Amino acid sequence: MQIDEITARVRFNQAGLVPVVVQDRASGVVLMLAWADAEALRHTLNTRRGTYYSRSRQQQWIKGETSGSTQFVHEVRVDCDADTVLYIVDQSGAACHLGTRSCFESDLLLAAEHD
Amino acid sequence: MQIDEITARVRFNQAGLVPVVVQDRASGVVLMLAWADAEALRHTLNTRRGTYYSRSRQQQWIKGETSGSTQFVHEVRVDCDADTVLYIVDQSGAACHLGTRSCFESDLLLAAEHD
Repeated sequence: MQIDEITARVRFNQAGLVPVVVQDRASGVVLMLAWADAEALRHTLNTRRGTYYSRSRQQQWIKGETSGSTQFVHEVRVDCDADTVLYIVDQSGAACHLGTRSCFESDLLLAAEHD
Repeated sequence: MQIDEITARVRFNQAGLVPVVVQDRASGVVLMLAWADAEALRHTLNTRRGTYYSRSRQQQWIKGETSGSTQFVHEVRVDCDADTVLYIVDQSGAACHLGTRSCFESDLLLAAEHD
């Protein structure tokens, strides 16, 4: 299948974006949620480098291009209604700009009852 | 901390919603992505039942209330910029309305190179 046929199966929102859940392959940890436009998704599929669209900077970004914390993308999945994408990656270094492995490490809103 | 203080820490989007990544506690599998408004998040925090907001039906929904596939929420985390929430759950039965454990099982856009 061609890349354009693949991206055509994804339902981007009105802003042309789709949320991307990023999961570490080895540990299973959910690393981050980011957004991709069709071009960022194409770049990911073509290169296996985790690529996204920054809503604040309004431009494509390749994860780790400045920080060195790159992502090798093993798998790309789309969910049952085709409006969310999942990247399964090997994360080099920290996924989070705060220096933690995952963006979800810092703030716990509800703790497990039996820890 | 009061529930309202907790939900005040989350940055909901212009529609008053936040994306929620839902992960199975035991397996680490990413089950689904759904959306929550402040009321759905409050309900989750108060009851530990996975609760969301349906954008199509424009109403709150408690996962499993009709299907029986309920979610017990062990942890709720928010990411580094507070605009995505993560529920760590025990999923009873199938998370996906298609009957699969996860919503991401059906459609693989990019396969691992060495399977």
